[in-house]
Amino acid sequence: MPGNSFGTLFRVTTWGESHGRAIGAVIDGCPPGIPLSAEMIQKDLERRRPGKGGATSPRKEPDRVEIMSGTFRPDGCEHDLTTGTPISLVIFNRDARSTSYDHIRDVFRPGHGDLTYQAKYGIRDYRGGGRASARETAARVAAGAVAARLLSLHSIDVVAYTVALGGIEAGSRDLRVIGENRLFCPDNEAAARMEERIAEVRARGDTLGGIVEIRAVCPPGLGEPVFDKLDAELARALMSIGAVKGVEIGAGFRAAAMLGSENNDPISPAGFMGNNAGGILAGISNGEHLVVRVAVKPIPSIHKEQKTVNSANEPVTIRVGGRHDISAIPRIVPVCEAMVRLTLADHLLRQLAIAGSRERQPQERGGDAA
Amino acid sequence: MPGNSFGTLFRVTTWGESHGRAIGAVIDGCPPGIPLSAEMIQKDLERRRPGKGGATSPRKEPDRVEIMSGTFRPDGCEHDLTTGTPISLVIFNRDARSTSYDHIRDVFRPGHGDLTYQAKYGIRDYRGGGRASARETAARVAAGAVAARLLSLHSIDVVAYTVALGGIEAGSRDLRVIGENRLFCPDNEAAARMEERIAEVRARGDTLGGIVEIRAVCPPGLGEPVFDKLDAELARALMSIGAVKGVEIGAGFRAAAMLGSENNDPISPAGFMGNNAGGILAGISNGEHLVVRVAVKPIPSIHKEQKTVNSANEPVTIRVGGRHDISAIPRIVPVCEAMVRLTLADHLLRQLAIAGSRERQPQERGGDAA
Amino acid sequence: MPGNSFGTLFRVTTWGESHGRAIGAVIDGCPPGIPLSAEMIQKDLERRRPGKGGATSPRKEPDRVEIMSGTFRPDGCEHDLTTGTPISLVIFNRDARSTSYDHIRDVFRPGHGDLTYQAKYGIRDYRGGGRASARETAARVAAGAVAARLLSLHSIDVVAYTVALGGIEAGSRDLRVIGENRLFCPDNEAAARMEERIAEVRARGDTLGGIVEIRAVCPPGLGEPVFDKLDAELARALMSIGAVKGVEIGAGFRAAAMLGSENNDPISPAGFMGNNAGGILAGISNGEHLVVRVAVKPIPSIHKEQKTVNSANEPVTIRVGGRHDISAIPRIVPVCEAMVRLTLADHLLRQLAIAGSRERQPQERGGDAA
Amino acid sequence: MPGNSFGTLFRVTTWGESHGRAIGAVIDGCPPGIPLSAEMIQKDLERRRPGKGGATSPRKEPDRVEIMSGTFRPDGCEHDLTTGTPISLVIFNRDARSTSYDHIRDVFRPGHGDLTYQAKYGIRDYRGGGRASARETAARVAAGAVAARLLSLHSIDVVAYTVALGGIEAGSRDLRVIGENRLFCPDNEAAARMEERIAEVRARGDTLGGIVEIRAVCPPGLGEPVFDKLDAELARALMSIGAVKGVEIGAGFRAAAMLGSENNDPISPAGFMGNNAGGILAGISNGEHLVVRVAVKPIPSIHKEQKTVNSANEPVTIRVGGRHDISAIPRIVPVCEAMVRLTLADHLLRQLAIAGSRERQPQERGGDAA
Repeated sequence: MPGNSFGTLFRVTTWGESHGRAIGAVIDGCPPGIPLSAEMIQKDLERRRPGKGGATSPRKEPDRVEIMSGTFRPDGCEHDLTTGTPISLVIFNRDARSTSYDHIRDVFRPGHGDLTYQAKYGIRDYRGGGRASARETAARVAAGAVAARLLSLHSIDVVAYTVALGGIEAGSRDLRVIGENRLFCPDNEAAARMEERIAEVRARGDTLGGIVEIRAVCPPGLGEPVFDKLDAELARALMSIGAVKGVEIGAGFRAAAMLGSENNDPISPAGFMGNNAGGILAGISNGEHLVVRVAVKPIPSIHKEQKTVNSANEPVTIRVGGRHDISAIPRIVPVCEAMVRLTLADHLLRQLAIAGSRERQPQERGGDAA
Repeated sequence: MPGNSFGTLFRVTTWGESHGRAIGAVIDGCPPGIPLSAEMIQKDLERRRPGKGGATSPRKEPDRVEIMSGTFRPDGCEHDLTTGTPISLVIFNRDARSTSYDHIRDVFRPGHGDLTYQAKYGIRDYRGGGRASARETAARVAAGAVAARLLSLHSIDVVAYTVALGGIEAGSRDLRVIGENRLFCPDNEAAARMEERIAEVRARGDTLGGIVEIRAVCPPGLGEPVFDKLDAELARALMSIGAVKGVEIGAGFRAAAMLGSENNDPISPAGFMGNNAGGILAGISNGEHLVVRVAVKPIPSIHKEQKTVNSANEPVTIRVGGRHDISAIPRIVPVCEAMVRLTLADHLLRQLAIAGSRERQPQERGGDAA
Repeated sequence: MPGNSFGTLFRVTTWGESHGRAIGAVIDGCPPGIPLSAEMIQKDLERRRPGKGGATSPRKEPDRVEIMSGTFRPDGCEHDLTTGTPISLVIFNRDARSTSYDHIRDVFRPGHGDLTYQAKYGIRDYRGGGRASARETAARVAAGAVAARLLSLHSIDVVAYTVALGGIEAGSRDLRVIGENRLFCPDNEAAARMEERIAEVRARGDTLGGIVEIRAVCPPGLGEPVFDKLDAELARALMSIGAVKGVEIGAGFRAAAMLGSENNDPISPAGFMGNNAGGILAGISNGEHLVVRVAVKPIPSIHKEQKTVNSANEPVTIRVGGRHDISAIPRIVPVCEAMVRLTLADHLLRQLAIAGSRERQPQERGGDAA
Repeated sequence: MPGNSFGTLFRVTTWGESHGRAIGAVIDGCPPGIPLSAEMIQKDLERRRPGKGGATSPRKEPDRVEIMSGTFRPDGCEHDLTTGTPISLVIFNRDARSTSYDHIRDVFRPGHGDLTYQAKYGIRDYRGGGRASARETAARVAAGAVAARLLSLHSIDVVAYTVALGGIEAGSRDLRVIGENRLFCPDNEAAARMEERIAEVRARGDTLGGIVEIRAVCPPGLGEPVFDKLDAELARALMSIGAVKGVEIGAGFRAAAMLGSENNDPISPAGFMGNNAGGILAGISNGEHLVVRVAVKPIPSIHKEQKTVNSANEPVTIRVGGRHDISAIPRIVPVCEAMVRLTLADHLLRQLAIAGSRERQPQERGGDAA
């Protein structure tokens, strides 16, 4: 399969370039009968808008999503409902200024995909990064909002938040305060210091990275051994976000230095007595919270002079101008939520197929000890 | 798709339980005309044999791989060659002692998949972990050896090595000494201290985790935006190994605390002047070494008493006996190599389809500035 | 995978309902560097427009396709070129009159998917057949036009034509006259009689079926044993068109009554001395013309009274009014072309991956006797 | 994906060559808890054994299937049960005589895949047709027997039978007598005449084709619009059998000459009042019997002299010796059953995922008019 689709049963295909006419997503496999409106999706899109956080540029980008297909309002029903057919979402590009990108036409920006797209395809849409632009993630967020509607019917809930930015770490995990600061940080005090760090780095024309943590309430049984383990699928989902350079589950890299007796989560009749596993054992969810962390690299578009080459492979320097975010955080936070939602929606449907077939089986099997 | 296959064009399906009759792999999509023999595969299998490293148990497991299909020796040819049809590899299980596992029939071992398999399927083969056993990875190594034959024709080379074990880190990366110690460590002195740590922890009935790094020589252009980015696919591939709890590319989690000006790799006419990107930009290989690290959790089978529940959800304690490795390292090292090889073989073929179609295109395109 | 995508490497996803806002297709995997414009696609769309043939209704439906993504015009290039990223095509619905479909809201039309969509999804967009409308095939034709651009670079050419309609068969196969009659029939005299038959049946409020033949110039080597044989894939592609009830390759059903000595195509140094195989042996193209025929059922929307049930499963009668075609022919002809093109484009890329990998192989293989 | 796998959720991969060590199938996605033994599968394999019908050669081929993985017998259970993990089936080749095929090493047999495999792969296993041998279908039958166990739990039943052979057609469809003659023909009298025709053609060194019909009891709702329509998937499944050159559903090619008023199946509260649709409307099963027919070409291995070329493209003649069947019928009959079962098992699971998700939906939807 080509690379612009995600999922096996709940399958999303995104399309569009940063400065093309539009971007969009087609969701194939969403079950029928789920209330869905553009407004529901719009709410999630607003969370990744620039201008919301101090780390983001003031560029105006009023993403308006339109539902082109896949919903219908039966007579007497108050909502549009999904019909089981593909849901096509389109967001037209409005604020794109192509002219401001002409100077990078023949130069490969460090840290960007300019050089690799050219190497792979022999051609690239250099306007605003083209397909490699973070703008593509708006389509993911829109699709993730549809997944959220399905998941909520099965009591699956996903939340992401900032646990580190520019080297400053959140000291606490008070998820109730996430909405109280612009960085989706579960520690208001740390958030304030992060904002200071952002201001300081902005003044120097530089950029920052950080760490986002995602937590999900998830029933046991999701994940398909052996290659489509739930953690493997989450890793792929999150690593497919451009700025992400690392993914860890539960104790993650800390587990590498632990003893088995420390890392194992004992089990009691009331559930697991620890969550170093991050809610996943042998690739299948165990009923505890899923806990995943991703490393977000600093945004490569900096206002400092950098060494690079042009398309003739001659050495040149470049200073990326224009309005750019200081950090992919916080805009990446809803993107992480979306990717986890899309992963869980897909594995939910995959498990429903198995569970549905088990209902009809003969009673003699005896193996269902639990 | 169900979860036991990996890859789009170079596609591997593994099957088999730890104590069933055999385990195996079917490779579909391997190109024709590649010399291949059981001996070539056997060599890689030997590297993951128990008893090779101090961290592994003395259990004898003389994995002998047999090629059941997909190769043929034309008249006058000195080697068997692949034919383009599926390559079926089988490894019969010989040293399995089912009796020693009966006591865990009704108990869910902490850190293992016992509970989650039961929750998902309502039945499980509890002998030696069944499908969730690390034994399954022998099939991956065998398949990876086939991928290696294809990759070598395209000058792609993969090597993995231990960079941390039990909290002890390799201080250097001298890949020439990897074969000189039993832990595949690029620092002989660190390897010696790791062995001491293993002996100490073994005496206490406990186990250890560590970190494995994988490095690959890879041409530019591999990886498929946007969801099948090369780093996303590598993350999925490696996280699908049971013991892996984290994956990072290049600078990985360190990038989260760096400035953009530090993290960006400048470009010169001779190539990149740094490799924080780990050889991947925007999901496509850039021609530098691919560098990936994985966090390996300590083996959950420890000789200490642990709290858990039985199949009636009653609290019990368990002390896992038998011969077990102290660490998944070093046996996991060739498994990591195999998964990276399978990923690169698949993306090599995917890119060859694109490159093949470009050869016939009209000359007017003009976009191929590089 | 859900069912709205087609192809492995050249992959098309269609979306949209007959009376929704728009219909469209996303093409993922189209190679880069291919000249493409909306006008090129528009030309193919015109061929399936209603009003073009006597068998079609006068309903005006000025399908205008728009390219939303995936093309770019590099400086100095006269054409937009594909970039290797997804090509999103959208056709807005303009002439839809939802009001005229309210009377079938609670009635299941014989021969249509009303009842089965309701059974499967528990909800359906009943306006004009919703997703099951033949309108969906406009998206296929648009996608097929993109495939045609790729195929033409590899000298692959596809043409479809009418060989039977309403029981009247074309006596000759003069492909040069296909454009001279409204039915895409390679026999002008038969076409005239078909038109008479249409007029006669129209007057009676009834409808007609027919047979379409597709012929393709195709190099040897396309098709993937054993399940993705080229004939199997063509059969699926064509049978996925709503009105198609049968597919045959080469001699097809006639072969069932032939002797082996009659059906076998002898081979000479200049090529095959017959084409009962229809250009495919063991699922792989053999270099002769691909020849496929499909049975097209009569359009189920007739002006006669029919027995059926309503949504309460009560017996009712229905007489479908409105403007409807008398036959899916000729509008289905370009749809057949499109589906064959999409199939061949996909298998071309799949074969290029194999061929590309063979170029690098050692010379010792010796098996390449041909 | 490469071509040796079939299905999305119930996914079968076959492997093996006619004269290699073994052939086999891996079934991934079979639900857990289903009783399964080698004996159950063996029974279906016996039906396709040579020597069973007059049309088949006396070559002895005692296919013994072995289950290598994926089943387990929990304590106190009388049967082995599937566990949800891959089921690996292996049939070792015993009666292969490679020597008898050396004379065709450099000659391309008419009607066989010799030339096309060579063109595609540049190498071929010429012993007994290699991968293109009908022997591969034994693996399909074995996999189909597993699918049958799943289908029976959902009251889905599939039967195939011979409706024409050598130009002689069955006059009746008395399915009770299928087991009374060696040709699986529902008309004993026609079967007797078919046997006479076989004897006559055998004496002349020639071979025969025929038509097989498949009928299935199937609930409404299976099939995934728009490309994975149930009829499209059945067409692909059946056309992927080497000898099949045509597939038709319900009235099939006859529908091409019918009026809409004749072809439409009226609906009554008790169900459809006809079955020209063959049990499928708009690609979704409608609850009536599925009815599919396939055209089987005459076996290409004839004892008559045929013109062909050798690997140097020089003209030669060939007379294929050895023991060969006169017709693919009756051995193809259980293969057709297997392919339909595999298709239905896959679509059953796909529909269970949709149905499972509908159970949790809010009651307000109102669209479920039926």
